[in-house]
Amino acid sequence: MRLATLQDGTPDGALVIVSADGARALPAETSLIAAIADWARSEPALRALAARVEAGHGDPLDPARIRAPLPRSWQWLDGSAFSQHGDLMQIAFNLPPIETDRPLMYQGLSDRFYGPNDPVPFASEADGIDFEGEFGVIVDAVPMGVTAAAAAAHIRLIVQINDWSLRAIAPVEMKTGFGWVQAKPACSMAPFAVTPDTLGPDWRDGRVCCDLVVTWNGEPFGRVCGDQMAFSFPELVAHAARTRDLVAGTIIGSGTVSNREYATRGSACISERRAIEMIADGAPQTAFMAHGDRVRMEGRTRDGHAPFGAIDQIVVSA
Amino acid sequence: MRLATLQDGTPDGALVIVSADGARALPAETSLIAAIADWARSEPALRALAARVEAGHGDPLDPARIRAPLPRSWQWLDGSAFSQHGDLMQIAFNLPPIETDRPLMYQGLSDRFYGPNDPVPFASEADGIDFEGEFGVIVDAVPMGVTAAAAAAHIRLIVQINDWSLRAIAPVEMKTGFGWVQAKPACSMAPFAVTPDTLGPDWRDGRVCCDLVVTWNGEPFGRVCGDQMAFSFPELVAHAARTRDLVAGTIIGSGTVSNREYATRGSACISERRAIEMIADGAPQTAFMAHGDRVRMEGRTRDGHAPFGAIDQIVVSA
Repeated sequence: MRLATLQDGTPDGALVIVSADGARALPAETSLIAAIADWARSEPALRALAARVEAGHGDPLDPARIRAPLPRSWQWLDGSAFSQHGDLMQIAFNLPPIETDRPLMYQGLSDRFYGPNDPVPFASEADGIDFEGEFGVIVDAVPMGVTAAAAAAHIRLIVQINDWSLRAIAPVEMKTGFGWVQAKPACSMAPFAVTPDTLGPDWRDGRVCCDLVVTWNGEPFGRVCGDQMAFSFPELVAHAARTRDLVAGTIIGSGTVSNREYATRGSACISERRAIEMIADGAPQTAFMAHGDRVRMEGRTRDGHAPFGAIDQIVVSA
Repeated sequence: MRLATLQDGTPDGALVIVSADGARALPAETSLIAAIADWARSEPALRALAARVEAGHGDPLDPARIRAPLPRSWQWLDGSAFSQHGDLMQIAFNLPPIETDRPLMYQGLSDRFYGPNDPVPFASEADGIDFEGEFGVIVDAVPMGVTAAAAAAHIRLIVQINDWSLRAIAPVEMKTGFGWVQAKPACSMAPFAVTPDTLGPDWRDGRVCCDLVVTWNGEPFGRVCGDQMAFSFPELVAHAARTRDLVAGTIIGSGTVSNREYATRGSACISERRAIEMIADGAPQTAFMAHGDRVRMEGRTRDGHAPFGAIDQIVVSA
């Protein structure tokens, strides 16, 4: 089942159920944040709509109306579960290795998620504007102390995210130990949230085993796979819920998708490419984004489908 | 003007305007999160209610129904603006000094704020259960890049907060640079949010120049004043808004109130007292909280009023 949120003038938008080919949609007469708050009750009705839309019902889906599946949520907890990303970022930031055997996670801005084609405003190119392509999950209400095994059943939807990052600020904030505020402005989401079953064998071991295809100003930048997470999404959910109940609609991110085979697969953020250049040449060669730059990110299943649709955005001056 | 939120079965609760003596209240027919989203329009109506309640109208206020003024909000950004607190915490955590000339700030859990008398559940005493008494402000919508001078006008309400903290986890998470997730469960708020004018001369230089009186299991623990912030609240708001619009209802915290005169004034968290003991005796003497323990925190103006009411809570087993 694929879900999207359309612009209807309200903060949370109008939930629709979308056909597998993305051409048609049926309105769900609710918002996703309302539906996820009582998923056990809302899911059967949404599944019934999905059956109808697959049977040919529904209106043409207007891409111009598509917002983030959750235009806002109460909680966004972003992991950093790809070890290869962490290793390269330590080089990029010139920081010592992080010594921990636990998942890395920070709480980020969740009052606004940009839609997949929204222009994204940044005040200054000097802040080091970078994208971070990742996958995420949306959970229903999760009780404090949940085990990873029990957490899996709370993962109701999977999304694709661009975690916009400001690299000139990130290491400065990181050194304080307080995490990121200025370095992590609002994220963007791809058009469609999907139920895990939609991914078939590509939702495996609690990981989104899809490729993430990234282009920057039309040039190929990376084609990285989500399978190399050091911790699974259920483990990230359990980590997040160790001392708090997770409110329904909480989004948990994988962190930047990154692979050991970066020489052939490339990256899902500029900072990693710069670190790779530092290793190879002693200094970074690639500049961060400029106003007017465009980034496109599309998750692909092994059979070539793009279940989340694409994020395709331009960076603009704030 | 004093505002409170009453339990009415909804997630956001029912906003009431409370008399200066706390005895009576008039319903505002909205929630605080809705009112703050359009403060320019809602404030005059709320002020009119305040005039009526001061004229003797209204129903008796039932303390048992009082929730946090904002039982949930879209964003909670907590500063650490008292240098004395930072200096003592570095000793408590055995970490090197934080080298930064900017305000310290992290984004915390905002989907739930406990009411002033709610029992607060914690899974394990071994996590090092501690309180942190602080003041905070609630802003309306703040544009990205706001100056500190312009930020002051966006500070609409002032609140009193207990930022519950788990000290066995905090330094572990801090060392990752990602900030705190497990170490910072939901906070609590005192009964009343007040407009800045309510504090009179005790809202000064962008600081809440009230005493915060803390007792632990009935024993005096600290009486610290909010005037020694190294950065004012408008400066904290501007820091938070450097790269993001702040959504209306954002709560910005001062961090634990702490004074240079800790020898006579005491502290607003146990960890500070332990650091002071480490300085004096080489080792901490005071244990963290146990299930069943009670903490009370009450802000006091110089003329002895308690504009926020009191947080008075018991720690229970999750």
